[in-house]
Order: sequence, then C-alpha cells, then structure tokens
Amino acid sequence: MTHYDLIVIGTGSGNTIVDERFASWRVAIVERGLYGGTCLNRGCIPSKMLVLPADAAQRAARAGHLDVHSSFDGVDWPALRDRVFGRTDHVAGQGHDYRHGQDGVDALDGTARFVGPRTLRVAPTDGGEEVEISADHVVIATGSRPVLPDVPGLAEAEPYTSDDVMRIDALPRRLGIVGGGYVGCELAHVFASFGVEVVQVESADSLLDNQDEDVARVFTDLASQRWDVRLEARLTKVVRDEGPDGEIHLHLEGSDPVTVDALLVAAGRRPNSDLLDLDGTGIEVDDQGLVVVDEHQRTTAEGVWALGDASSRQPLKHVANQDARVVQHNLLHPHDLMTSDHRFVPAAVFSSPQVGTVGLTEEQAREQGLDLAVVRHQYASTAYGWALNDDDAGFLCKLLADRSTGLLVGAHLVGPQAASLVQPLIQAMSFGQPVKGLARGQYWIHPAPTEVVENALIALEGEL
Amino acid sequence: MTHYDLIVIGTGSGNTIVDERFASWRVAIVERGLYGGTCLNRGCIPSKMLVLPADAAQRAARAGHLDVHSSFDGVDWPALRDRVFGRTDHVAGQGHDYRHGQDGVDALDGTARFVGPRTLRVAPTDGGEEVEISADHVVIATGSRPVLPDVPGLAEAEPYTSDDVMRIDALPRRLGIVGGGYVGCELAHVFASFGVEVVQVESADSLLDNQDEDVARVFTDLASQRWDVRLEARLTKVVRDEGPDGEIHLHLEGSDPVTVDALLVAAGRRPNSDLLDLDGTGIEVDDQGLVVVDEHQRTTAEGVWALGDASSRQPLKHVANQDARVVQHNLLHPHDLMTSDHRFVPAAVFSSPQVGTVGLTEEQAREQGLDLAVVRHQYASTAYGWALNDDDAGFLCKLLADRSTGLLVGAHLVGPQAASLVQPLIQAMSFGQPVKGLARGQYWIHPAPTEVVENALIALEGEL
Repeated sequence: MTHYDLIVIGTGSGNTIVDERFASWRVAIVERGLYGGTCLNRGCIPSKMLVLPADAAQRAARAGHLDVHSSFDGVDWPALRDRVFGRTDHVAGQGHDYRHGQDGVDALDGTARFVGPRTLRVAPTDGGEEVEISADHVVIATGSRPVLPDVPGLAEAEPYTSDDVMRIDALPRRLGIVGGGYVGCELAHVFASFGVEVVQVESADSLLDNQDEDVARVFTDLASQRWDVRLEARLTKVVRDEGPDGEIHLHLEGSDPVTVDALLVAAGRRPNSDLLDLDGTGIEVDDQGLVVVDEHQRTTAEGVWALGDASSRQPLKHVANQDARVVQHNLLHPHDLMTSDHRFVPAAVFSSPQVGTVGLTEEQAREQGLDLAVVRHQYASTAYGWALNDDDAGFLCKLLADRSTGLLVGAHLVGPQAASLVQPLIQAMSFGQPVKGLARGQYWIHPAPTEVVENALIALEGEL
Repeated sequence: MTHYDLIVIGTGSGNTIVDERFASWRVAIVERGLYGGTCLNRGCIPSKMLVLPADAAQRAARAGHLDVHSSFDGVDWPALRDRVFGRTDHVAGQGHDYRHGQDGVDALDGTARFVGPRTLRVAPTDGGEEVEISADHVVIATGSRPVLPDVPGLAEAEPYTSDDVMRIDALPRRLGIVGGGYVGCELAHVFASFGVEVVQVESADSLLDNQDEDVARVFTDLASQRWDVRLEARLTKVVRDEGPDGEIHLHLEGSDPVTVDALLVAAGRRPNSDLLDLDGTGIEVDDQGLVVVDEHQRTTAEGVWALGDASSRQPLKHVANQDARVVQHNLLHPHDLMTSDHRFVPAAVFSSPQVGTVGLTEEQAREQGLDLAVVRHQYASTAYGWALNDDDAGFLCKLLADRSTGLLVGAHLVGPQAASLVQPLIQAMSFGQPVKGLARGQYWIHPAPTEVVENALIALEGEL
C-alpha cells in the first residue's frame, strides 16, 4: 500500500487544489471519469455553449417586435455538439495527461472507496487490479449525479439526464422534460429554440419553484408561451414502445398524458457520497447524503476534507471553487485556517428569460421575521427597457432590504443580462455596503441595462 | 417684466429640478425645442432604440460560428423610426403639456438670451412678441449641439447630424460618416447592420481615439471588418451633385475619394452658451464655450447655476442628471450646499462591439506618473468566452491600478455587455474598495460574462 501526503478524490474543483505549492507533497489524484468533473463535461460549460446558440436562434426567430425581419433556419446539431464537446473533451484530456505526466503526483483512473481511516481502495476504470492507498490528508471532491425519481417504467424507458442529453446524435422531434428546476429550464430553452417540441412536467405550481415567487411567475409565464409547460402534474407511469424509435408515453396525474420521442429527467441531483463506503469511517453524512463539514471544510474525521457538491447545499461551481481554495489554503496553513464564506451565494438560470439571484427570497425573509422593505422595478420603465420593446414580458429587478440594518438581504432579476446585472448587488451584500447611498454614490451609465438596478435601489432607499 | 424665484433654461436634465419641493416657488421654464433635450429626442434614447434592432440584425446575419443557420432579411425602417420617435415624441409632448398645465410654473416655448443680471429676453418659437423675465435664480441647462467642421462645400451639401439622421425617410444605399467618435461609431453600427454601405472617415489612426488604446484598437479592427473605415483621412472638400438624389463626393487627404448618397457629420459637439448672449453678464465661459462652474454647480455670477452639457467636459446624460440633483439640492438648501462628484464618470459606446469604460486610460495614467499595474484579460479565456466562440474578436477587460494606493484607477471593456460589466468596477472605484480582496470577497456566477472581470481583478491583485 502506497502512503501519500494527500489524496484528492475527484478532478472537478478538487483538481485545482494541487498547484506548485504542493511540489514537495506526495499526491494521489483519483478520477473515475473525465477530468474536470460535472461543470466541464456535463454541466455549466457545455450547457452554456448550447445556450448561446439557442439565444441566437430564438432572437433570429423573433425580432419582429424590433421591426427587424429575420429567420431561424435550423441548427447544425452534430456540428454544434462536436464543437462543444470537442473543446471540453480536449480540455479534459489535457487535464488527464498533465496529471499523468506530473512528477510527485500519481494519477489513478478509477473509483475510490474507503476501507479504513484515510485509506482507500481504488478499482481501476480499465478493470485492472484494485490498489490500496492511504494518506495524511484525503479530500472528498466527488461531486453529485442526477437522480431518477421512483416512477413505474421510468428507469426501463432509459431516459436521458443532463449527463448525456447534450451529446445525443440527433435532435428528437418531441422531447419530454421531467423537472422544472434550473437544469430542466435551461435545456428546455436550448431544445425549444432549436425547434424541438418540448413538454416540461413539473409537480409544483410554477417552474423554478425555489426562486423568489415573482421571478418564478415571470419565468413561468414566458416559458409557457414558448413550450408546453405542465404544472401541478405528477409523473405516475412511463411506457416506452418497443424498438429503437419507440415512442415514450408519460402518464400524468393532474394533466393529460403526453407522448414524446425522447425523455430528459432533470429532477434533482444527489451527492456521490454513497459510492464511497463511508460507513464506519467517522465521516458523517446528513440525510441528503451531503458530507458534513465545518467552516474550514473539515469533515468529522481527522485529516479528511470535503468540498463542492459532495458537501454543499448549494451545488454550484463557484461555490465548489471557493471551497477548493479554502481546502487548499488550510492544507498548506494548518495553523492559520481559512473560513468558507457561504453568506451571499448567487446563482443564475441561463434560460430565456435569464435569472440572476442572490440572498433571501421574499418568502424566506418573511419566515425569518425581518422588517422588510421590498421593491419590484420593471426593466420596461428604463430607457433600455424601451429599446427592448418587450413591455409585456414583465422583466424585473426585485430587491429586499432589512429595515433594521439598512442592508440588502436579497436581489432577484429576471430578464436580459440578469446574471451580470446582479453582480453590483452581490458586491454590496458581500462587503456590507448599505442601501443608503449605494445608487447615488456611483454613476450608472445611461442608458445601459444597469439602470434597472439603479432605479430599484433608489426606490428601495425610499422604503427604508 | 415678470420676476420669478427660479428660471430654468432648457428641459433636458434641467427639467428634473422642479419637483413638488418647489411648490411654493414661482418658476419659469424656457424651452426652444422639444421637451426632454438631446437625450430623449436626438441622443441616447432614440439611438439605443435603434441599436437594439441593429444588434438583432447583425446577430441574425452572423450566427454561423454558433452553428446556427439564420438570416437577416431587412428592417422595416419607417416602422422602426415611427416606433422610436412615436414613443419619444409622446414623452416629450407629455413633458410639454405637464409644464404648460402646472400651477406656479410658467412654461415658455422660446429662445432665451441674457439682457442683464438674471434677466432674460425670450423670443417665442411661434414668432410672437418677446418677453423679458428675471429671477432670483437662473439655471443654465441649455445643452450642446453638433458642429460642422469648416470644410469647403460641407455646409452646402446639407449633411445630416445626429439631430436628424435618425429621422430620415428611407435608408440610403451608401452613407458617409465623418468622425470616429462614439456618435459616429454607434450610428455606423446601426446603418451597417441594416444593410447600408457605410464609409467612416476619421483623421486619427483609430476609431474611438479618446478611449484607452487597447480598446480603440480592438474596436477599430472589428469595425473595419464590417464597414469601410478610412483612418488618417482628412476631409478636404465636399461636392454634392445637383438634384434631390445628387451623389455626394468626399475628397480626402490620406485616402481615396468616396461617393455616397447621404452624409452624416459626427465630428463633435459644442455647448449652446454662444446663443445666450453671456457677454457682460459676469457668467464666464472657457475656451470651449463651457460655462465655468464651481463644485456646487455655481457659475461666476451670483444666483446663476449651470449643469450638464452647458458646463461639463463630460457631456453625458448621467453626468447631467447628477449635476441637476446637485443644483436642485443647492437651490433648496442654500446653507448646506452639496458638491458634484465627477471623480469616476463611466461611459459606454453602444456599438458593436460594445465599450464600457471608467477612469483613466493607460496613457493618461502614465502621463500622471502613476506606479501602474496593468492587466488585459480576454473574454476568450473565460467559459462565457468559449460559448461566444469568437476568440479572434479580441474582446477584453483591461484594468489599471495604482500600486501606491492599491486602488483601481481605470477599467475598460470592449465586448458583449461591456456597459453592464463595468458597473462593479465603477462601484469599487466610487466607494474606494481596494483591489486586494475585491474578486475573492464576493462570488461571481459561473459561467456568467462577469467572470472576465473577476479574472482580471485576480490577475491585477497579483501585480500589486
């Protein structure tokens, strides 16, 4: 058994830990799939590389309200898919080759499970002989994976998940999507923009049900104009006809049945901790399967750390990257530990419309009993909104402040550039900048999209 | 002669001063044109309402690099023009009617000139009898207008300026644009996107010559791929053929001659102070015709104030609005004067590519002898840049910091969403937030366009 200074399991954000400062460490890195993890290979990056062409397709198909005649004449799906995954696979391969050629690092392609304290058995992906390794420090950076809900016939229908739907050979004529969260809503936009007939099934009464309700309402209204959205609809049974081109029939409680040619399940993800044989290791997991960590990303077992989707309630790449920096620092500076900052974690939905959000929803803030000031400011009331000429869309910036502190507690945008426009609000929240003076203490370019934030802040200041 | 508490000359930003807090004041407002000034009627707003359709046209015409087949099939120019000016004219009309119906306010449609201290003679626009009015306070909010350079034949050719080119009846086949500043570059994008053959003539060696040179270079390279850009070319003579459809011939020093069907001159603007008969009033103007004001927007004459393009070296709407708020406050609080903040004034060029900028250019910073840290970060190196698949474009975020203070002194972006992406940097500069910790002290959504700013800040911190 080889003993290391450090073992990192997983090469998503975990792979960023081992840099030149670890040159004197003996390191093993274990990866059971492609280097780069979910974000690079199955998540944020390929999906956004599909969303931009989808945005272009949607805009070309609908510019009449701007008095422009244009048309969308189809997507070259194989070329697009190959461009996207040609790029990400290349980067993943570079990551693999770099680690495999690196002095002082043993890169193991295989699946690790714990067999003792900081001791792992790795089953090689190529079927070779298992090896046991141990280390002073182990970092669990094993991420998460999509789950299939327990619905009769669903697994047998072999539906796609976000893991593979982006790599399909050809666009289906009709695509069913189970799930109204951000993954389902981004991919619904992608496929609908490319001309696929999309039916999206969600058990809640809106899409993006975990967003602020104003954002969810605007989003759901606009999505429903573009594809078939079935709300308060529960999938009860799936039947797939025989044969490679067999139709898939979705039986729904609360809605009429649906027949599609392909099915995507985007009904949530779960941490991969169950694959690690954590029982008896002293590494606690919670009831969702998340590895329990403290503010320094330490698990409940000595010398074992965790980060990202393996341990975070916010399974987002920018959180995983932050966690990885904290683990990295703390490995290098055991007597000067850094603390994770999960106070103001933003998120975006790169669909159409786009959503950008940070902090508490109104519902969450009211549950906390805050003395709340709330404003909703329409894009349509700004000069940029006039230019959009899309007044009925309802694009808005909603801000929440705590009157007792004068600070922002939540910011939610739905509309063009929402993921960018939320940044000054993230900045204000993160650095404790009070609402009072925030709008007037800086210039906002006229007539840029940022004016919706400026005007919302001015209105909010008037409510404090 | 009627005596007022306050006379405001000009209804651009000047019109925002008189709100309900002036209910007890006797006020006169003088306007020689449309209510709302340049921004609403001839500037920012209509131009941006044309830029968005132009963006849509350009994107539809060029989406092949995204593997999307789409086409631009023409603009309905009369419908677009009527939609834009239908909206702005309506708002201008509302402004006019509101003031004309308001108790305590005399709205005079005419041209004002000084005939004594705080005493004006107003020549009514309808040719009626001139009236004299005086006031305790006079606000000069008279804005600026385009200038024609002194070139033989130019005035006789009756070229368009930004005042009227957006209202033309039909798109010309070929449009000459004299001037490579932001007005010329925005309107070149508009007309080129709509299929007009544009030739842009600039005497400097780049377009946007007053921008940071990296921004100017990237912009000029990309513009030159879309329309005919003539650099280091000086207009020496203009000849217009006889008749309503007479061709216009531009003779150029440093470039071949050009023949066009219509001509736009966008070669700068001048303050309207020369129309006010300021001689002998004690109201000083500088050698550019700008009314000289102190930090409270007071002119050199007792009780006379000025704001916006009439007095600012930065003729931008967001500056004029700020100036107006300062004048408003100071009129209401004569013993608690507010100070104008012109430290960090951003600006954008809503062309394609877009430019967003604040603070010093590298050249300006070097002239000041600053101990400068400079980074240039490419959009192409971010995940969003991968999605754009436009690596050759050269889109970038350039940041400048003063090593002696650790503060940003300039930020310049050229590329998608530049006018929005610059906002967190404006915020940091305005509130004195140090570069150190700025990127890591807040989350940046992955993979949003904002990551180019995050990564540039991280690189900059490494240079301090």
